[in-house]
Amino acid sequence: MSKEITSRATDYSQWYNDLILKGELADYSAVRGCMVIKPYGYALWEHMRDALDKMFKDTGHVNAYFPLFVPKSLFEAEEKNAEGFAKECAIVTHYRLKADPVHKGKLMVDPEARLEEELIIRPTSEAIIWNTYKDWIQSYRDLPILVNQWANVVRWEMRTRLFLRTAEFLWQEGHTAHATKEEAIEETVKMLNVYADFAENWMAVPVIKGVKSANERFAGAEDTYCIEAMMQDGKALQAGTSHFLGQNFAKAFDVKFSDKENKLEYVWATSWGVSTRLIGALVMAHSDDQGLVLPPRIAPLQVVIVPIYKGDEQKALIDARVHAIMTELKALGIRVKYDDSDNARPGWKFAEYEMKGVPVRLAIGARDLEKNVVEVARRDTKEKNVVSLEGLSGYVKDLLEEIQQNMFNRAKAYRDSHITLANNWEEFEKLLDEKGGFISAHWDGTAETEEAIKEKTKATIRCIPLDNPVEEGTCILTGKPSSQRVLFARAY
Amino acid sequence: MSKEITSRATDYSQWYNDLILKGELADYSAVRGCMVIKPYGYALWEHMRDALDKMFKDTGHVNAYFPLFVPKSLFEAEEKNAEGFAKECAIVTHYRLKADPVHKGKLMVDPEARLEEELIIRPTSEAIIWNTYKDWIQSYRDLPILVNQWANVVRWEMRTRLFLRTAEFLWQEGHTAHATKEEAIEETVKMLNVYADFAENWMAVPVIKGVKSANERFAGAEDTYCIEAMMQDGKALQAGTSHFLGQNFAKAFDVKFSDKENKLEYVWATSWGVSTRLIGALVMAHSDDQGLVLPPRIAPLQVVIVPIYKGDEQKALIDARVHAIMTELKALGIRVKYDDSDNARPGWKFAEYEMKGVPVRLAIGARDLEKNVVEVARRDTKEKNVVSLEGLSGYVKDLLEEIQQNMFNRAKAYRDSHITLANNWEEFEKLLDEKGGFISAHWDGTAETEEAIKEKTKATIRCIPLDNPVEEGTCILTGKPSSQRVLFARAY
Repeated sequence: MSKEITSRATDYSQWYNDLILKGELADYSAVRGCMVIKPYGYALWEHMRDALDKMFKDTGHVNAYFPLFVPKSLFEAEEKNAEGFAKECAIVTHYRLKADPVHKGKLMVDPEARLEEELIIRPTSEAIIWNTYKDWIQSYRDLPILVNQWANVVRWEMRTRLFLRTAEFLWQEGHTAHATKEEAIEETVKMLNVYADFAENWMAVPVIKGVKSANERFAGAEDTYCIEAMMQDGKALQAGTSHFLGQNFAKAFDVKFSDKENKLEYVWATSWGVSTRLIGALVMAHSDDQGLVLPPRIAPLQVVIVPIYKGDEQKALIDARVHAIMTELKALGIRVKYDDSDNARPGWKFAEYEMKGVPVRLAIGARDLEKNVVEVARRDTKEKNVVSLEGLSGYVKDLLEEIQQNMFNRAKAYRDSHITLANNWEEFEKLLDEKGGFISAHWDGTAETEEAIKEKTKATIRCIPLDNPVEEGTCILTGKPSSQRVLFARAY
Repeated sequence: MSKEITSRATDYSQWYNDLILKGELADYSAVRGCMVIKPYGYALWEHMRDALDKMFKDTGHVNAYFPLFVPKSLFEAEEKNAEGFAKECAIVTHYRLKADPVHKGKLMVDPEARLEEELIIRPTSEAIIWNTYKDWIQSYRDLPILVNQWANVVRWEMRTRLFLRTAEFLWQEGHTAHATKEEAIEETVKMLNVYADFAENWMAVPVIKGVKSANERFAGAEDTYCIEAMMQDGKALQAGTSHFLGQNFAKAFDVKFSDKENKLEYVWATSWGVSTRLIGALVMAHSDDQGLVLPPRIAPLQVVIVPIYKGDEQKALIDARVHAIMTELKALGIRVKYDDSDNARPGWKFAEYEMKGVPVRLAIGARDLEKNVVEVARRDTKEKNVVSLEGLSGYVKDLLEEIQQNMFNRAKAYRDSHITLANNWEEFEKLLDEKGGFISAHWDGTAETEEAIKEKTKATIRCIPLDNPVEEGTCILTGKPSSQRVLFARAY
């Protein structure tokens, strides 16, 4: 083995960090809470971004770019939003450095270059965008506005973890403006469905679509829709949110439009976002003690070919055959690499690509060539098969699809077996501590009870599922009446 | 006309702003010196970015992402670089806001949340990246590192102009690490050639490849290579730079590698970048008094179709035919829009798409349908032709190529006619004031003379062209001997 990984059973949290670092997805940086996304991790993000971007464009959205900075007076305009993010804002106060007169060769902040108004680095862009929309919207003819932005944002979190919670992260944020409440809600749900589609069909991560309780709502939203995923340690992870913002931002920034009857109305808003956090979800949903397991559709590398040979003569024969295989695979749009570097043995390479989660590995030796076969290893099940070189590219293409599907099925089976009903407090606590996962339980609907449950158990209401059946019952904590179950879990 | 544009002759600078704003490329924002890139402008940037990104990947580069913030102690490590950017740095000093006790509903910077070390918002990323490379590089086997980053950067400029000079801008920055000086220089020149290829073949903007004088060099570089373009007002614009950084950053951040003989050596570096500034160059190189003129290869929209009809019956006939045309054009990969909105007359639409620089406009009326023809108008020359509907898609495809080529030829003819020799000071000043453009003149090679010329005339040395012939002469200002001419110009 090239690199040691802590096993999940030994220390799940360390296992996760090992995978991110040794799988070369990201690295710590010199800046507190900020990470470096390494080329392999960034290639993964590029595939995710491109797939999402196409889905956004196919649903009528266009991209734009708004400033990184939000002047404090704009930031505080929507009070709930401002209050929600105030405690984690990076703030620019000065715009110049000067030579430090005391320490030669060092610089200091120039006290004379203080900004008149402080600039907040966007933790989210509603404020700067709605201040702009004010100039873009006069009439119903200017609506809807369906804009998305790919950007970096900063939230000064106290406890950070690679991908899951970093001070700076990359994301996309959609910000749409509508003439009616119905249309805005329709947009909110449409984008939730886009996220669920992406999570399930590209990331192979099954998700539950639901609505957040008031406590867990985005600051400034009327309703927050979310997709919730289940990790292998039984903790939930919020993988994407879509907010119906009502007229809150339109009122805070005075954005009105004249409708067809020439009456002035406030505009209705949505916002929705997913971030590099998704990479954390992906890693924790699928990977194992040997390393990353990446779904083929977004894997930076889908197939790796490793030659096994003695001497230049064998190598030359293998090379020739591999180049033909590569051409065929590339013609099918498959991302393939031939690793014939001579500074590592095949066994080391096998472990390395297992660590990196490459879905399919082909190993080809001189004796295989004679028999016209190749060894095909799949990363998800670790099965190996000897396969004929005739029709290999079609076989690999089908196998990639099968792996994608199998990874989803496996994650779904795990997730489904980790949704458990609890009918009283005892069951609830026992399940949380012994099994984890989502716990479906009755709740009296109050913020106080939710808060009390969180304090006692660290479990939060992940969501009220969209397809939730009406069911009479009593709250697990207070015994008060309830009309439906909600999903609780400890979460990332 | 839907929107008035100032003519170039009346006020070139206002003409430029009118095009950016009324062509809907960008908008001013509430943040001093920062702009909003509007969807149409961002779509243009996406096409430019995608073309460049492919060129980078085809030359072996991979993307990654490094933090937005640079701790002050890292920022100041490479002294020349730090000194060069110190005066234009946005600085984060605090990480939390709190409720303002005096002004209800307002927030204030929490004085207790002061950072121990200030964070500089990257004006360029050499410092944070080389501090990271220190951990990535031990042996010659780790080299070369060929990394690029697409990111936002901030330079607190006092005078800003949409796209040309904004406090925040989008760019890419390549940062490569090499074992030898020769390899690093080769990389520097390779990327300069990539930029020139992109500028000429995608943006249709001819450029001169050259090297900067010491005065105009990137802070911290040994040599700065550049591509220089000529705008329609006779001013030059630096469109991209590629820096050979020597071992300056390796020494500042102590990045060494053991070579094949196991000897420790400092690593050699390059960096290279282009930014959203290119959009300014594009606009000023090609556009006219009617609006933008965009080169087909990167135009967000390549073809627009406008129907001319009376009544629903005519409209239905045109619709059916246009949908067939759209299908054919899209099958050829052409970006086409059918504007059949009924809230504007055809003449208004014509002016609107002229303003937006759409390369080809098709107008189709009921009488055209009868004759099986369509009116094709090209934006670059404003020529109109009546063309048969048979074979239309092939005709349009060829026309787009012809427009691309014509735009380049036209810009090149203008540029070439604006490179003029000056053999003495009188000629030099007269040319600068009466004709503009590049002035090819002898210079004694000293920084003092360059500075003096700049003070007298505002002209700078744009570059020493790569293919410059050796020619004995005397400096236009000092009369001292010179071995080659250099290109002077007033510049953006």
